[in-house]
Amino acid sequence: MKHNFNAGPSILPKEVFEEASRAILNFNDTGLSILEIGHRTPLFESVLNESVALMKELMGLDANKEVLFLHGGASTQFFQVPMNFLSKEKKAAYLDCGVWGTKAYKEAAQFGRVEVVASSKDKNYSYIPSGYAIPEDATYFHYTTNNTIEGTQMHHIPDTSVPLVADMSSDILSCSMDFNKFTFIYAGAQKNIGAAGVNIVIVDKKFLQSANSGLPSMLDYRQHVENGSMLNTPPVFAIYVCMLTLRWLKKLGGIQAIERLNNEKANLLYTTIEELPVFHLPVAKENRSKMNAVFTMHDAELEKVFLSRCKEEGMVGLSGHRSVGGFRVSMYNALPLSSVVAITELMKDFSNKYGS
Amino acid sequence: MKHNFNAGPSILPKEVFEEASRAILNFNDTGLSILEIGHRTPLFESVLNESVALMKELMGLDANKEVLFLHGGASTQFFQVPMNFLSKEKKAAYLDCGVWGTKAYKEAAQFGRVEVVASSKDKNYSYIPSGYAIPEDATYFHYTTNNTIEGTQMHHIPDTSVPLVADMSSDILSCSMDFNKFTFIYAGAQKNIGAAGVNIVIVDKKFLQSANSGLPSMLDYRQHVENGSMLNTPPVFAIYVCMLTLRWLKKLGGIQAIERLNNEKANLLYTTIEELPVFHLPVAKENRSKMNAVFTMHDAELEKVFLSRCKEEGMVGLSGHRSVGGFRVSMYNALPLSSVVAITELMKDFSNKYGS
Repeated sequence: MKHNFNAGPSILPKEVFEEASRAILNFNDTGLSILEIGHRTPLFESVLNESVALMKELMGLDANKEVLFLHGGASTQFFQVPMNFLSKEKKAAYLDCGVWGTKAYKEAAQFGRVEVVASSKDKNYSYIPSGYAIPEDATYFHYTTNNTIEGTQMHHIPDTSVPLVADMSSDILSCSMDFNKFTFIYAGAQKNIGAAGVNIVIVDKKFLQSANSGLPSMLDYRQHVENGSMLNTPPVFAIYVCMLTLRWLKKLGGIQAIERLNNEKANLLYTTIEELPVFHLPVAKENRSKMNAVFTMHDAELEKVFLSRCKEEGMVGLSGHRSVGGFRVSMYNALPLSSVVAITELMKDFSNKYGS
Repeated sequence: MKHNFNAGPSILPKEVFEEASRAILNFNDTGLSILEIGHRTPLFESVLNESVALMKELMGLDANKEVLFLHGGASTQFFQVPMNFLSKEKKAAYLDCGVWGTKAYKEAAQFGRVEVVASSKDKNYSYIPSGYAIPEDATYFHYTTNNTIEGTQMHHIPDTSVPLVADMSSDILSCSMDFNKFTFIYAGAQKNIGAAGVNIVIVDKKFLQSANSGLPSMLDYRQHVENGSMLNTPPVFAIYVCMLTLRWLKKLGGIQAIERLNNEKANLLYTTIEELPVFHLPVAKENRSKMNAVFTMHDAELEKVFLSRCKEEGMVGLSGHRSVGGFRVSMYNALPLSSVVAITELMKDFSNKYGS
């Protein structure tokens, strides 16, 4: 029995693996593999249509929103968003809360003026800044809802009239929020939606009208919308895995149901760590991520011992990012509560043995 | 028993499907799915490294060549190549032999001067032009080695000192050629290499030094080379399927072995069609594609009858592209000879019944 705490690509529901494995041999009783069906067939069109419909239903999106499944990951969106919506005459506001947010604003600076309204770099991105002003004349305000590496998460939607652009790669579909408040959402699929190799974009139709012209076809959101995510051969299997995962989430009761489970997992983990003196939580309490819990040990020598104990118990993906060190427990939607129970029990045992 | 003549995504070897299906449940006896392993793990690094090594070995690439596995399909390369290597001061030469070649030069025109040296548009792209001159001052000469939609294929490498850039999406690894004569090769994987959702780029290291600076990171080949195709989370599963398919090809005897089989399949199909008066081959004989055979019927009414007979025999993917009409039999590497035997037998029966 493995416990997969990988930060992404990461655990997906067991029934998704089972169904995907079957579909590679025989998709929907066609006698064909999902890997060998044409993308311009009713077979695949129904996969894509259902994936789009499930995203809209689960997120409660209004009729003004378009959902795209595109090649690439969130890193592609870092430049594609400003390439479509910025220019040398326009300004975008960015919140800098970690490695990915930094990359996003640096890519944007090639296309227009960028104002970083606040940064938590001063404390190694261990908190989410507050009290900053978003300039009213900004074309959009960009932020990362959950910082996978640093273990912080924004638990509210900023109150502004400036169009909101959010990188939700690592917490999309994990907790309820009014997704319609966002003008543009993007997310690499490989955490809560599916496997690596596809990128989900949700864009407001009206905002799309303000996009720049004369872009390469594959970078032009409007062309992707006009072609229903089929401007070229889409990543068929990656989209199929999204569909299976979205079906699973719907069957489970949708975002509200998974949010309850995610809260339970995060509460159990954080309260356990708080009570154990050998561990240390570097992130500001109010900004703790429910998806990625980052922690270290006061005695760095013990970290290796703990990691090797985890390995013995079949726990994988626990090493913290090299920029942060220590450990990271990723608790995406598909991670069962039992895995969090297992690691918290191990932590308690470990603390009893080594804590003094 | 199905016969899959899809133009892409298309048939892959049966043992690739079987191995991929197992890996989705349990990859390399790790107890983890290939879909949930981290990309920065030795597990995935070995997949990527083996895929790169197999491409180099099978294609006999020299030490000056870099092999990349990138997000997107060939359509991404249509603009990424000129974005990296063209400018308003530079000129690129393009050969226009079909839908994809046309798209390629139109995307390029946004980045620099484009000279279309020859086109077969006058005859609905049913032949490959010859006798054209490639301007010596061109930064590169771009052509499509095999035209999937129109069923034509270039059976020689142009003799020029201008750097050669080739879109080999639909015939890469299908026949022997001196791949080192090319400065830049790209191919969407979903025909002869693997599943949809990954793009293979082979670039000359020296040529790469002439690339433009200041590009978005994800569009900058040099950054991908520096990061070994891991600039961001790569399409893990799509690359894994490439590795399995490349392993299969190597085991079979490599490109020379598959070329013999491909020649056998194409010869059987074309000679059969030539002998049957109900069918018509619109492509110039010397330019016929060994990957995609395009044909029509003299009596358009009979086409529906033939298609329905094919369907009864479990044959899929036979409709010609809407721009060409008729039929298309795609015979990629993984298509067994038995499928070509089956359709030629059916054609003979059909011709006996309906040919007069």
